[in-house]
Amino acid sequence: MALIVQKFGGTSVKDRSRIFNVARIVANTRNAGNDVVVVVSAQGDTTDDLIAKAQEITNSPSSREMDMLLATGEQISIALLSMALQEIGVSAISLTGWQAGFVTDRAYSRARIKRLDTERVESELARNRVVVVAGFQGLNRSDDITTLGRGGSDTSAVALAAALHADRCQIYTDVEGVFTADPRKIPKATRLKEITFDEMLELASLGAQVLNNRSVELAKKYGVELEVLSSINPIPGTIVKEETKVEGMLIKGVAKDDNVAVISILGVPDVPGMSFKVFSLLAQRNINVDIILQSSGTDGAKDLIFTVPLDDAESALSLLQEHKGRFGGGEIKVDKNCAKVSVVGAGMQSHPGVASRMFEAIGSQNINIHMISTSEIKISVIIDKADADRAVAAIHDAFIQ
Amino acid sequence: MALIVQKFGGTSVKDRSRIFNVARIVANTRNAGNDVVVVVSAQGDTTDDLIAKAQEITNSPSSREMDMLLATGEQISIALLSMALQEIGVSAISLTGWQAGFVTDRAYSRARIKRLDTERVESELARNRVVVVAGFQGLNRSDDITTLGRGGSDTSAVALAAALHADRCQIYTDVEGVFTADPRKIPKATRLKEITFDEMLELASLGAQVLNNRSVELAKKYGVELEVLSSINPIPGTIVKEETKVEGMLIKGVAKDDNVAVISILGVPDVPGMSFKVFSLLAQRNINVDIILQSSGTDGAKDLIFTVPLDDAESALSLLQEHKGRFGGGEIKVDKNCAKVSVVGAGMQSHPGVASRMFEAIGSQNINIHMISTSEIKISVIIDKADADRAVAAIHDAFIQ
Repeated sequence: MALIVQKFGGTSVKDRSRIFNVARIVANTRNAGNDVVVVVSAQGDTTDDLIAKAQEITNSPSSREMDMLLATGEQISIALLSMALQEIGVSAISLTGWQAGFVTDRAYSRARIKRLDTERVESELARNRVVVVAGFQGLNRSDDITTLGRGGSDTSAVALAAALHADRCQIYTDVEGVFTADPRKIPKATRLKEITFDEMLELASLGAQVLNNRSVELAKKYGVELEVLSSINPIPGTIVKEETKVEGMLIKGVAKDDNVAVISILGVPDVPGMSFKVFSLLAQRNINVDIILQSSGTDGAKDLIFTVPLDDAESALSLLQEHKGRFGGGEIKVDKNCAKVSVVGAGMQSHPGVASRMFEAIGSQNINIHMISTSEIKISVIIDKADADRAVAAIHDAFIQ
Repeated sequence: MALIVQKFGGTSVKDRSRIFNVARIVANTRNAGNDVVVVVSAQGDTTDDLIAKAQEITNSPSSREMDMLLATGEQISIALLSMALQEIGVSAISLTGWQAGFVTDRAYSRARIKRLDTERVESELARNRVVVVAGFQGLNRSDDITTLGRGGSDTSAVALAAALHADRCQIYTDVEGVFTADPRKIPKATRLKEITFDEMLELASLGAQVLNNRSVELAKKYGVELEVLSSINPIPGTIVKEETKVEGMLIKGVAKDDNVAVISILGVPDVPGMSFKVFSLLAQRNINVDIILQSSGTDGAKDLIFTVPLDDAESALSLLQEHKGRFGGGEIKVDKNCAKVSVVGAGMQSHPGVASRMFEAIGSQNINIHMISTSEIKISVIIDKADADRAVAAIHDAFIQ
């Protein structure tokens, strides 16, 4: 008998038939002799509806009241799912975030879990109940409701799995696992049986959008074995864990990220401290800089080129324009028509052929590469947005098919 | 500086404009130098929508999960009202039932308040905040969410007023106070300035539907001065308190209750214990019997006639049919086309003319009286439903105009 934590997102519980679908998955897991803790998100559009209600009242709601409001979404889901489980004969009980023992810091709307008191969950499990827990939410030390921010339900599930020493944490989504590329774009993309945490982290941050990064980091930290699988077609999905068996395939996936803009500052004086001035300015405004490229200086000036998330491009630009005197006053340009395409796979660095094979695939499509960035387990290139899908297909062909 | 508890029902917070209307009433009370605790219900149709969601899942939801579900309704209201208060510059904080310290018994869906820990509410008041509390809900000793049942938000408000020793508890509704009769039916009906708890209890149970009975009982028990007033037209309303000044008018109101059925059991053996057999049977099924009339026995048999709530008529009938052998086996009839019309006023018993004046008014309209019941402060008659509005008008004319 194993203990399994299962997490279902908002789409998986959006209406009556999807709720019963989830209830049957849970019942099957239970009937196979497992203890089950279920973590659910708010139904379908509930969160958006609640946000709209708040926006009718004010443009700047207090984040405490916003969390008070949003936490109702998951509370509705857990009650309905528990009713559905009971309806099909499964003993079940719902618990809000605070009832399940999630203690967080005070950062409303993006709280971090400080502690998890699993006493209540364990006592309900001991009474042979399926425990249905509201994801995304907790309680701070003032007894006020907090929410964990984007992807918070994944984080709730992994934290519960870690604290309960669960045998597995299953993340149910609307895809059947982690694929070598986006299967809607690359028909040849195949499902991976296994992937390491590090590979998953690179794929997630590269726009594969299957698992929230914070939850993968947490799973890695506490050694929680994850499984990504589909709530519609519940065949075995992709296991995410520390070490994978050596497989024939070195490259685990090809990912595309459209949410990228390239900013160029031309003619920066080639003196020490210039990069720090630029990037500390951006860091103060919480703008994440990803790839950085610096041209070699000629006649005492250099060009500084880097990427930021597309949504932050305008505010980064106006911030830099405002302070341009501090780094030479040269021209500042922004390019929003680009994309980042990456290959991910552990051990890549010890296989020097990977990069050249990737560049060859891109070159064979007559696609120009603007920037290159590499790490131990990935190679990313910045190219024109219009070329991105063709590049992904060519790279996928070169490595995986 | 006074402490005032203000309660607003679901209609009063049903949309953006009504929420801001409530916020302005609260702000005015605050700006007049008072501390304010606000109790709100779920918005407009929210509770019905949540019940519909549950009914999609199951016909017999567990009452624990139902309370988990329904409690979200008030939680949404308190967050939105707090945002609206903050938007118009009033420092405010929302608290759920459990945050506000409502400890109840275990009876889900109709819990009773056992204790109220006001520590959190008092500390927020001390920080000069308006405290916005979710009505209708509490927490039992297992840390599970409970709801107080019908009219629960009124009860929450009165309990808070009692525990905080508030100077007044204002119940905002969609009428301007307590009237001598239903003003939609009787244009001459006038608003009462004051009324006693006992009179209010009789009027409430007689169908005046202004204040929930449990909340009036609680207010009487703890001596909480109530004021019933309108959230649309916030002029002074009706004060409900222990003693009222002697006024010219003896009769406080005329009320009609349509939710009545008359059940007749004919030919019951005229032996001791028969009434007990009938009424204990109904009590076991939680069917409230109101007026009871027993015909004098002739040839060893008597007729037993009594009223029950209209909604319970069918189940009472089938219950009695099933056990009819136990009380003689005579004919059992039910009449659903009747109504109860009552006059209420303290000291009525010492004015014997009241009853005859009431019967005269009814007789003048050629209306037949089926049953009569009297207490210290009321006289009720059962008549045909079709005659009820005419009877109320005639009685109102006779006593009040």
